[in-house]
Amino acid sequence: MTDSSDDFPRTPVAVLGATGLVGQRMVAMLAEHPWFEVVELLASERSAGRPYGEATEWLLAGDAPTSVAGMDVRAVGSDVDSPLCFSALDSSVARDAEAQLAGAGKLVVSNASSWRMDPRVPLLVPEVNAPHLELLDAQTEWPGGILTNPNCSTIGLVLALEPLRRELGLERVRAVTLQAISGAGTPSLRTAGMLANVVPFIRGEEEKLEVETHKILGELAGSAEAGDLRIDFAEIDVGAQCNRVPVIDGHMLCVNVELEDEADLEELREAWTGFSGAPQELELPSAPAPVILVHEEEDAPQPLLHRDAGEGMAIHIGRIRQRSPREVQFTTLSHNTVRGAAGGSLLVAELALASGVLSGLTMR
Amino acid sequence: MTDSSDDFPRTPVAVLGATGLVGQRMVAMLAEHPWFEVVELLASERSAGRPYGEATEWLLAGDAPTSVAGMDVRAVGSDVDSPLCFSALDSSVARDAEAQLAGAGKLVVSNASSWRMDPRVPLLVPEVNAPHLELLDAQTEWPGGILTNPNCSTIGLVLALEPLRRELGLERVRAVTLQAISGAGTPSLRTAGMLANVVPFIRGEEEKLEVETHKILGELAGSAEAGDLRIDFAEIDVGAQCNRVPVIDGHMLCVNVELEDEADLEELREAWTGFSGAPQELELPSAPAPVILVHEEEDAPQPLLHRDAGEGMAIHIGRIRQRSPREVQFTTLSHNTVRGAAGGSLLVAELALASGVLSGLTMR
Amino acid sequence: MTDSSDDFPRTPVAVLGATGLVGQRMVAMLAEHPWFEVVELLASERSAGRPYGEATEWLLAGDAPTSVAGMDVRAVGSDVDSPLCFSALDSSVARDAEAQLAGAGKLVVSNASSWRMDPRVPLLVPEVNAPHLELLDAQTEWPGGILTNPNCSTIGLVLALEPLRRELGLERVRAVTLQAISGAGTPSLRTAGMLANVVPFIRGEEEKLEVETHKILGELAGSAEAGDLRIDFAEIDVGAQCNRVPVIDGHMLCVNVELEDEADLEELREAWTGFSGAPQELELPSAPAPVILVHEEEDAPQPLLHRDAGEGMAIHIGRIRQRSPREVQFTTLSHNTVRGAAGGSLLVAELALASGVLSGLTMR
Amino acid sequence: MTDSSDDFPRTPVAVLGATGLVGQRMVAMLAEHPWFEVVELLASERSAGRPYGEATEWLLAGDAPTSVAGMDVRAVGSDVDSPLCFSALDSSVARDAEAQLAGAGKLVVSNASSWRMDPRVPLLVPEVNAPHLELLDAQTEWPGGILTNPNCSTIGLVLALEPLRRELGLERVRAVTLQAISGAGTPSLRTAGMLANVVPFIRGEEEKLEVETHKILGELAGSAEAGDLRIDFAEIDVGAQCNRVPVIDGHMLCVNVELEDEADLEELREAWTGFSGAPQELELPSAPAPVILVHEEEDAPQPLLHRDAGEGMAIHIGRIRQRSPREVQFTTLSHNTVRGAAGGSLLVAELALASGVLSGLTMR
Repeated sequence: MTDSSDDFPRTPVAVLGATGLVGQRMVAMLAEHPWFEVVELLASERSAGRPYGEATEWLLAGDAPTSVAGMDVRAVGSDVDSPLCFSALDSSVARDAEAQLAGAGKLVVSNASSWRMDPRVPLLVPEVNAPHLELLDAQTEWPGGILTNPNCSTIGLVLALEPLRRELGLERVRAVTLQAISGAGTPSLRTAGMLANVVPFIRGEEEKLEVETHKILGELAGSAEAGDLRIDFAEIDVGAQCNRVPVIDGHMLCVNVELEDEADLEELREAWTGFSGAPQELELPSAPAPVILVHEEEDAPQPLLHRDAGEGMAIHIGRIRQRSPREVQFTTLSHNTVRGAAGGSLLVAELALASGVLSGLTMR
Repeated sequence: MTDSSDDFPRTPVAVLGATGLVGQRMVAMLAEHPWFEVVELLASERSAGRPYGEATEWLLAGDAPTSVAGMDVRAVGSDVDSPLCFSALDSSVARDAEAQLAGAGKLVVSNASSWRMDPRVPLLVPEVNAPHLELLDAQTEWPGGILTNPNCSTIGLVLALEPLRRELGLERVRAVTLQAISGAGTPSLRTAGMLANVVPFIRGEEEKLEVETHKILGELAGSAEAGDLRIDFAEIDVGAQCNRVPVIDGHMLCVNVELEDEADLEELREAWTGFSGAPQELELPSAPAPVILVHEEEDAPQPLLHRDAGEGMAIHIGRIRQRSPREVQFTTLSHNTVRGAAGGSLLVAELALASGVLSGLTMR
Repeated sequence: MTDSSDDFPRTPVAVLGATGLVGQRMVAMLAEHPWFEVVELLASERSAGRPYGEATEWLLAGDAPTSVAGMDVRAVGSDVDSPLCFSALDSSVARDAEAQLAGAGKLVVSNASSWRMDPRVPLLVPEVNAPHLELLDAQTEWPGGILTNPNCSTIGLVLALEPLRRELGLERVRAVTLQAISGAGTPSLRTAGMLANVVPFIRGEEEKLEVETHKILGELAGSAEAGDLRIDFAEIDVGAQCNRVPVIDGHMLCVNVELEDEADLEELREAWTGFSGAPQELELPSAPAPVILVHEEEDAPQPLLHRDAGEGMAIHIGRIRQRSPREVQFTTLSHNTVRGAAGGSLLVAELALASGVLSGLTMR
Repeated sequence: MTDSSDDFPRTPVAVLGATGLVGQRMVAMLAEHPWFEVVELLASERSAGRPYGEATEWLLAGDAPTSVAGMDVRAVGSDVDSPLCFSALDSSVARDAEAQLAGAGKLVVSNASSWRMDPRVPLLVPEVNAPHLELLDAQTEWPGGILTNPNCSTIGLVLALEPLRRELGLERVRAVTLQAISGAGTPSLRTAGMLANVVPFIRGEEEKLEVETHKILGELAGSAEAGDLRIDFAEIDVGAQCNRVPVIDGHMLCVNVELEDEADLEELREAWTGFSGAPQELELPSAPAPVILVHEEEDAPQPLLHRDAGEGMAIHIGRIRQRSPREVQFTTLSHNTVRGAAGGSLLVAELALASGVLSGLTMR
């Protein structure tokens, strides 16, 4: 990763939903960020008025960064000064709160699901679909705007798929997920029974994985001028079965792909190892290099051993096995609360800043 | 289950590999069996000469059955008196030991993998392919014979597939397994790292799941007279990705199936709930009824909650979702050391006894 | 256990808090009880009006008993007909609800903590302090009455201590607990982090373990006539450190005891193995025999292997080691939701019935 | 930590037992060490002749350091050139191998238990008993010498005890351990059953915890000249109960201490927070500052949240509670494979180098 702190001025940012697990990851990753500086923290009424260090049950290793521990938390809905807002809000409150901020001229980068499938809102995995950033121009009713990153399991899937789509074409994707508990939010009594158990259900997850993949791998079409700027969804047959497993961090997916073109093992490996995108070209501070680590060991990747590679921003592929020249199966692993959530948002914000979108907005 | 203890005399049996986890399950399940009586226990040299209760680190709930706790363990390779032998031997020693017993006129029912794929040896899941028992007639060089049950994950898969094959036809099967640690044998230093982890590899498992399914779902063909008695393998495209997860007992499989015929959800459910086979018709003591429990709850089946249903001999199906009239995905769960190992062997032995195979052998 | 179903008529009972984990255990244990018959189920407003089988996320193996699955749940606070009520209510609502029932002439047997330390309420472990049942006569303001069983970790401790107290006298007890998660109720976000972790804190637990032990091991004194019927607390120095560990069921305690009299190892073992009390003399249906299982193996007891012994009503002692003739350390294990909760309540109710307390009350 | 790389020349070192878990930690911690450079790697015959990166199943996050991945592993017993040898050998082979190296003039710093209790061998926790280094002069039969660090659970205990001993005096210590599985070596079939379980036994652990504490807290006495240089063991009554819990890294101990002097809570906290020793004075590269982190939160310390503080070299104390002015109970946590093993050895070696012991030896 490149420290480009000289190229840009440090942008003040607000973090919404700062006391939850994803919010904490955002705060931790922003603490020493070369481009962004956390100056505002917002959370629920319950936390409002208390210093961040007190209001937060800190769930990551170490302590909350000293730069923010003493900062008072404000209630979501209060006025925000920062031009850039990170949202780790629960989807139950995110929709209104984010629209309000966009209406007040802010650029919101959101990890919530509320706006992801809105036809005017970019759903971004910067290595995969950076051009979708332009869809922001469809958000004409707001002086600001909303950018989103996908669901934690979708990010890992599309990063694994995009190199194959580019080089060989995708016809059909079937994915079975083994997802860590850290993304689960407050558990119900029954899902709390995750100890030595598997729960074959995560509400809404299979649908998200399918539909978000279609949008991310789709094509930007139309134009703002003509009023038909849009994403034409990818016509790939995507299906998922989602499971929660007793793992702390790290989502694994067992994927079976039918390609458009025939390929041999070497071509597959090259597609993955040679993959990079806008974040690497722009040398964004949080961009991993390489993006994808291909494992040759017979028992990799494993959440416990590999999730932290590339500061949690790289993904892993292993257990590659061809069933025919057009069918390949593999296992992919990504860090669900870093690459799959807080780090995913951060990379979107870096892309927006490097692309001039943020300065464009503030001049509107 | 039916206690038919009056219909048959109680047959003396030997258990080989009696001190291991699967051997313990066999001993526990045989302790109060109406047809069989454990009279001989064999294990490695290390255990030989010691009472079973002392030689065994008992891993199941409660204590070793009192009827066998005081019985002296003998070394594998010693002469055996019982006409019926259960083998829970490690595959490294099973091949020779089992052939020796078959050569001595015994009927061996084995959970080991050594002889499973031999063209003369039946690989049996009694509800699915009871007629394959006849293949025993191809074992002409032995006065006795060898019967096998499949790998722990295969049993659950074929029980879930057979009702679909019968009613609707199978074209293609893709299965991702989430397997409990109890089937793993002594762990290496690395696979011991199963706490809060997933290991996407079990040696030989994907191959077994694929090839054993072909044999079990195959057709008995030819004749003993013509010397071409055999199983013609099923021509179904079967593929697997196998994972070890931190669960104590209970293998889950996420399965995606392409059917030959179109079906609606109701037809699928009926195929499963209405399924039964030879063990239910013959009212074998260990036969579960129903064989398959179909769950409607959105978060079932789960290993912790459901594995013990039907004394661990039934299997579970849930999360049924059709992707098209010919493509269905579902989750299946079975108890890997009961139905998938010791109980699977027991049912094979019951089938052999009820079918007159054992008495046939002893009269040869 | 003895089925004494001929000696008593079957008493209709209500279960309050029937949908929670302890309530489910009560319902399961009562389903085939020779003395009691569940005829009323009460829970929170949220469950009221729905059949029990639907209102309950069943957390135990198998399904809810068919005898109650179709029974409609009523809201706590409704009138109750049954003379005997089991309460598995949350302590936040138990105090008022139980007093109301006692006021209406019912005998309430409660697992909640609300009334345990009230000077008029017996806190019962039937093998240990059955005579305390008489304290019920101090509950003069109610036509009915309240009986309680202690906290899940206290029950295991006092059962392990009482034999030593009787035979050798107790001066000082230090206990460190390793408690399963099943007793924890709905977890907070932070305590949810129990996977591969230990949390050295359970709210109120250390205090309960200390003070409840004093009461249970105390002496009944005074008289109802004189208006000073009471328990004089035991003067034993008891201290605890409580931890939550990632275990599903089964509380372990590492105990260090200073005795009044000197003892050798054989005397200690005899004190434990020879221990029994009122439930065994009265042959109560849920009374385990033996009460205490003493393990000689160097690595016992273990939650996974031993918690279910004696239907979960027996306790285990192992790792006995003397540091001096008056100081002994040992490890004890008990099933926290059976002996430590639902089964503990059941045994109290059986004691009350066998002692004529229930019939005495209904005649008041 | 201080980088003092200018003060000393970089010393070439050998690592014995380099392929095991503790050996891997040593290699990882030495990879960028300012004073030491790994130039030789030794392990069992099985690994000999293969590059380290291939011979090792790497169990830590990331990959084996590139500086050693290509280095060929040699068999233990081969000649060693380096003046300083780190030993992570299994105790079954450590005794002879380490004596041979000391006989060849090397300074061996060992994590194995073989020589720890030898009257001529220092057993060192540098913050606690740095003066014991002088005991090396009693090793007259070897031109080199052997230094040891204690057992993983002992290190955490003595670091927690020493501040109390210094300020208030110790009479009696009772400790219950909750130990992570990473220190367990290759598990047996039964101890492999650690998933959702507790095993109340670790072979030899209770004895080590007791006797090693006596030696470490003892006094150097006599003189080399008089031939009676020795450690007079501390006369503190120490007792332990040791448990294995399903935690990956991080040993917790629940400790109960009887002090010689009365103290209040503030004095206790000051004793711990103000504690430091030779490593901090000498600014050794691996010395944590502070040594002890005292937690005020009611649910700390926890292995998952706190074990990595101070690069895994600091220890944690929480849940402090006084039972009387002379009795205090608390919970302590330390990282068992860092501070409790590899990092403990490293700190001993740094102390030896900074004290001139190593240069003294090489001049003998």
